[in-house]
Amino acid sequence: MSLFRNNVEAMTPYVPGEQPAPGERFIKLNTNENPYPPSSRVAEAIQAELEANGSRLRLYSDPVALEFRKAASESTGFPLDGILAGNGSDELLALVVRAVVEPGDVIAYPYPTYVLYETLAHAQGARVHEVEFPRDFSLPRELFGAAAKLVFIASPNSPSGTTYPASQLAALARSVPGAMVVVDEAYADFADENALDLARELPNVVVLRTLSKSYSLAGMRLGLLFGAPEVVAGIAKIKDSYNLDRLAIAAGAAALRDGATMRDNVGRIRRTRERLSEELRAMGFDVLPSSANFVFARLESAARARATYQALRDRKILVRYFDRPLLADGLRITVGTDEEISSLLAALREP
Amino acid sequence: MSLFRNNVEAMTPYVPGEQPAPGERFIKLNTNENPYPPSSRVAEAIQAELEANGSRLRLYSDPVALEFRKAASESTGFPLDGILAGNGSDELLALVVRAVVEPGDVIAYPYPTYVLYETLAHAQGARVHEVEFPRDFSLPRELFGAAAKLVFIASPNSPSGTTYPASQLAALARSVPGAMVVVDEAYADFADENALDLARELPNVVVLRTLSKSYSLAGMRLGLLFGAPEVVAGIAKIKDSYNLDRLAIAAGAAALRDGATMRDNVGRIRRTRERLSEELRAMGFDVLPSSANFVFARLESAARARATYQALRDRKILVRYFDRPLLADGLRITVGTDEEISSLLAALREP
Repeated sequence: MSLFRNNVEAMTPYVPGEQPAPGERFIKLNTNENPYPPSSRVAEAIQAELEANGSRLRLYSDPVALEFRKAASESTGFPLDGILAGNGSDELLALVVRAVVEPGDVIAYPYPTYVLYETLAHAQGARVHEVEFPRDFSLPRELFGAAAKLVFIASPNSPSGTTYPASQLAALARSVPGAMVVVDEAYADFADENALDLARELPNVVVLRTLSKSYSLAGMRLGLLFGAPEVVAGIAKIKDSYNLDRLAIAAGAAALRDGATMRDNVGRIRRTRERLSEELRAMGFDVLPSSANFVFARLESAARARATYQALRDRKILVRYFDRPLLADGLRITVGTDEEISSLLAALREP
Repeated sequence: MSLFRNNVEAMTPYVPGEQPAPGERFIKLNTNENPYPPSSRVAEAIQAELEANGSRLRLYSDPVALEFRKAASESTGFPLDGILAGNGSDELLALVVRAVVEPGDVIAYPYPTYVLYETLAHAQGARVHEVEFPRDFSLPRELFGAAAKLVFIASPNSPSGTTYPASQLAALARSVPGAMVVVDEAYADFADENALDLARELPNVVVLRTLSKSYSLAGMRLGLLFGAPEVVAGIAKIKDSYNLDRLAIAAGAAALRDGATMRDNVGRIRRTRERLSEELRAMGFDVLPSSANFVFARLESAARARATYQALRDRKILVRYFDRPLLADGLRITVGTDEEISSLLAALREP
């Protein structure tokens, strides 16, 4: 007899993208990390927090991560009491599920999207209502009015890179007034618009951001949730008391206070993204228009996509291949530096 | 209508001990932090991970925190595949609850103990079976054979400081073969013995440790779970993929690899603890024998205890007062430096 809950016993865990062993030299275009370093103020802030040889580390960190949230409020104009800090946006996604969804309740989202939504649903014993995207990844009509307690929309979506206008997301949120709608904006800094205002205007919308992508801090685990103060207070009830460590709080505040570095890096990545998309199209790939720091490039068959993934891997270039319905004919390619993308394109042109 | 689950709507969040605002000068004896700095190797390891001005932070951290777990395996002799790393042991406690307990299932623990167990039960919608400790805080017989899915035992217990022999804990675990038994050893490095071997010998026992207390790293959020490999694998299914950041992993590994510094600090704290206990007894407090880095000192009434807490606070000395049944007549006092404890004792002697 298992000691675990049945749903946990039965579930398959989320498998993050491959991380090469230390020392292995890969061009790493598989987990949407930023190819450029974070603001130099991040390391400075960490050094400052380490003063006196780390002796401040003996004291607990701030349970409400005030410095980090203040910086988020300054950089977005969002009220402080509507902001919750997380140990990565993954923690915030898990907290929303646990706060909102009873076992047996329904979580709805379009498919294909971030695979973690399904994992979190299974971990909670929730039922999943997956609504298939059309081939162009526009928002499926069937999602509107869905009988669900929680709706996830990634905008820009992964792995498609497609984004959804705030007006459409507002209509979606209004169509499900009894549900929490989570707009997962992990990649929004790479897009032309975002839906942050909805988190202030609509009581059932929360917007999630991360510092992993645009701020080049995947290794520091920093996420932000924006919503109504009552919603933030409800979710905060079930978070771990000290969910961010001292160095993460200092790093997050410093990064947000140097928006210029982030925007420079994002600008470079967007230029490389356009070049990558054009060249892939010229080579015969079907490339969706991307508003993120990756592109989804489709081939004529799953067999071709899988072979291309493997051929790149043999040449020490990692991209992401999803062996799942509607995704198996494509590759998700993170936008690296111009040099890395040139190497990728050269490898793809090899016979 | 609330968007939240009923149990979340109804619950009271855990309130961590007061953290004075930056700049406020308190003698802080309220949250069981270590008064001595961590190993100097911790700051060195963080510096090394920050090389090249923090550019490594753009990459995700290791999902399985291998370096930290390896150091834990080396320092304890516990097999690597029986060790799970957490963002503080609070995260590990929450993960165990979510992996094991369905809403409506029973969680049993002796009372009074770490208040978070109750909070976590309510967050999950579980039922709570609290078994009152006798006044000497020996293990209550009623806990043996309890009809529960999960049993928590803190050993040493907080706020009593009392510890439980491995033989008793083994008998308890054998009496509830269908339940997971979590031995929360946050304070075990301050005690004469621990129950780590049980996590290897009994399939339903897990042992939790933290680096917050004995290793002086409360601000870095580092916890460890020890158990059977199948148990670790089951709990790992529902953890966030990247639950520890890069600097925390480096800090944790470095701290565990310098056991000598930890043992020196623990030795000093134990000596101060004995002095504190004796002097408090001489002043008329009823002091439980402590195996932790704090003592629980009882007065003749709740009114006296509350007044003493307030009088200390007025003198800028923070201790912990719990306004709860069986605890309201006592103060939990963290063992600080000898100097801090001298100040505390002097303040208590004032008329």
